[in-house]
Amino acid sequence: MSDYFDEFETRSEEEREHSHIDALRAQLVHARRSSPLFSQTLASHDCEGFSSLDEFRNYPVLRKSALVEMQKKMPPLGGVSPLESETIRYIHASPGPIYEACSAREDFWRLARALYAAGFRKGDLVHNSFSYHLTPAGAMLDSGCHALGCAVIPAGVGQTELQLQTINDLRPNGYVGTPSFLKIIIEKSVGSGMDVSSLNKGLVSGEALPPTLREQFKENGIDVLQAYATADLGVIAYETVADTGLILDEGVYVEIVRPGSGDPVPSGEVGEVVVTSFNPDYPLIRFATGDMSAFLDGQSPCGRTNRRIKGWMGRADQTAKVRGMFIHPEQVNRIVDRHPEIQKARLIVEWVDRQDHMTLLCEAVNRVQGLEEAVSESIREFCRVRGSVKLVEPGSIPNDGIVIEDSRKYE
Amino acid sequence: MSDYFDEFETRSEEEREHSHIDALRAQLVHARRSSPLFSQTLASHDCEGFSSLDEFRNYPVLRKSALVEMQKKMPPLGGVSPLESETIRYIHASPGPIYEACSAREDFWRLARALYAAGFRKGDLVHNSFSYHLTPAGAMLDSGCHALGCAVIPAGVGQTELQLQTINDLRPNGYVGTPSFLKIIIEKSVGSGMDVSSLNKGLVSGEALPPTLREQFKENGIDVLQAYATADLGVIAYETVADTGLILDEGVYVEIVRPGSGDPVPSGEVGEVVVTSFNPDYPLIRFATGDMSAFLDGQSPCGRTNRRIKGWMGRADQTAKVRGMFIHPEQVNRIVDRHPEIQKARLIVEWVDRQDHMTLLCEAVNRVQGLEEAVSESIREFCRVRGSVKLVEPGSIPNDGIVIEDSRKYE
Repeated sequence: MSDYFDEFETRSEEEREHSHIDALRAQLVHARRSSPLFSQTLASHDCEGFSSLDEFRNYPVLRKSALVEMQKKMPPLGGVSPLESETIRYIHASPGPIYEACSAREDFWRLARALYAAGFRKGDLVHNSFSYHLTPAGAMLDSGCHALGCAVIPAGVGQTELQLQTINDLRPNGYVGTPSFLKIIIEKSVGSGMDVSSLNKGLVSGEALPPTLREQFKENGIDVLQAYATADLGVIAYETVADTGLILDEGVYVEIVRPGSGDPVPSGEVGEVVVTSFNPDYPLIRFATGDMSAFLDGQSPCGRTNRRIKGWMGRADQTAKVRGMFIHPEQVNRIVDRHPEIQKARLIVEWVDRQDHMTLLCEAVNRVQGLEEAVSESIREFCRVRGSVKLVEPGSIPNDGIVIEDSRKYE
Repeated sequence: MSDYFDEFETRSEEEREHSHIDALRAQLVHARRSSPLFSQTLASHDCEGFSSLDEFRNYPVLRKSALVEMQKKMPPLGGVSPLESETIRYIHASPGPIYEACSAREDFWRLARALYAAGFRKGDLVHNSFSYHLTPAGAMLDSGCHALGCAVIPAGVGQTELQLQTINDLRPNGYVGTPSFLKIIIEKSVGSGMDVSSLNKGLVSGEALPPTLREQFKENGIDVLQAYATADLGVIAYETVADTGLILDEGVYVEIVRPGSGDPVPSGEVGEVVVTSFNPDYPLIRFATGDMSAFLDGQSPCGRTNRRIKGWMGRADQTAKVRGMFIHPEQVNRIVDRHPEIQKARLIVEWVDRQDHMTLLCEAVNRVQGLEEAVSESIREFCRVRGSVKLVEPGSIPNDGIVIEDSRKYE
């Protein structure tokens, strides 16, 4: 049996780029025609003429917060999805509240590829400990398993004793769920008379997998890899070899941008993960996940040719309330955009003399006269709060994707 | 749109009987050929020659307790289902533990018919408050909704506040779940600012629906009907008009037997519900549910022609421990079978002078000499515990399906 789920995984960079251009063009045209939301936001764009990945940065980013607002105005789905009520299978709910629809499309969230990479094969029996209630996590893994021809025990969360009994009796060989719950299963089985040794592979998600925990699973005979997925988009990236990064899924186009902007950062720099899905039933275009990551250079040792990202590196949502006003990364980015002399900036918020104080660190490539005063004026204009400006050398702001650093310590 | 889900619901008694004979024959032949369990239990039966419903009483009953044992011997499914590991979609778990498999067959548990009768139609949005975790209840309702073309909010159990928020935001028009949770939803919504008035119909199951509660739902604008379903079999019967009994599903053949036996009781008499499913993927034949009910005479006012049963009338599992020995209804039935003079019996267990005391009430149609002594001997032989015998007039034992009446009161 092949090491790869399909031939897409090993195609050349050029093939993938051409295919991405075609897929993005098709999705842009489709979304503008059939989605009420994108028919507005893409109205002035030449979607049919889309012909190079460089152009994509000019298309609008859709922030999660904006989608929450759109869903309130245009319930239930904010006009994103062209699905009709008869073709929607499920509407799931995530904190926000934000709602996600899916259709009967096979493997809607594309988990099969990630499961295959983690060793899941036709005929396996999979214990699924993700929740099925309101959140799509349980259903996401199920549809991937079913696409592969695996049977599923829909265990869900809680009822640990019953889950142990079921694993003991049915002897599943695969586990999907959070790493922490797999740890609980293993630890609770000791001395309980319940045999969980049938489990020999796992695909985990939803939280960090520390290397020591992966090692503990290995010692218990379970090879565990990770997937990075969100409720809106499904799989974004997945592991193939432990600790070598996550390979991008073939069903999405991924960018990493300066948080709060739509501008891609140089490869290796930490930024916000922005994803475009090729799924026509839920055509999210340049959807800002709020998650931070960075591209990894080079190719995976497994032979798959797609780009890799590091794991989850924190949240990009860095909104801070300063002197009663909300300051968003978008506002900081607007300041940077106005002054071409600045290539990167970071707003430091501190608590000094019992009041909020803001300082904008600016990597200035060209220190023209009056630059500090001009930037200071921009801060007041875009943030409606005064702040001081400190020009620093290019490269001196840490590569961690943080645009607003809240350093306030109240005593 | 038709009042009926399909033309099967209004066919004549003769048509249905012929169709049942054909379906039972096909299922018997299929099960004997493809199911490891039934290839044994049906080995000596002329399945191909099956030609009248009267013959069916000679086929073996499969008790739930026997299935639990079979699953231990032949995991995971006790050899009932011919499904291969690649064609199983889910294995669910119920208390016992007993495990149930399903395939990708559309509407595997046949909920669509019951939902249709309760007013659910294509394009509806359905709030499903059954659990999806280990139990098949959530999945059963989902597959019925999807077969009808309804979208589902997989709400599950718990998280009541989130469920209210979701109903408020998404405005589903249908509810499926237990009646008691619908009551909680309505009562918690009062004064919460959450609007649940979008709900206008419901299909409930899993527990009794008292008439006063149905009235309360009606006052809140929700028309609620009931379905009777089990994890192994799916839908057995469903309501079409409130308080007129439950109509048998078209995908099963239902008998009502003397508890612990395979002998059908006369129409109207309370007994154990024994069901044969026509589903080839999980061919349960004469499966004793352990539930008690009775056939209702006459036809439903809705125009459907299938037989009706009363609702759930208790459990048939009347095992009692007497002087340290377990006594099962099967043992009482063996006594009745040995003595043709007895048409019905009921074992009364009491606590007299600080010890267990058993009396077998016997409806004797022919009081031959020495009958009491002979029956008393049979009690000792089959139950391994002594018991006295009391002959009573035919018709004097209550019509409640109870074979072992445990009247012990310890002081």
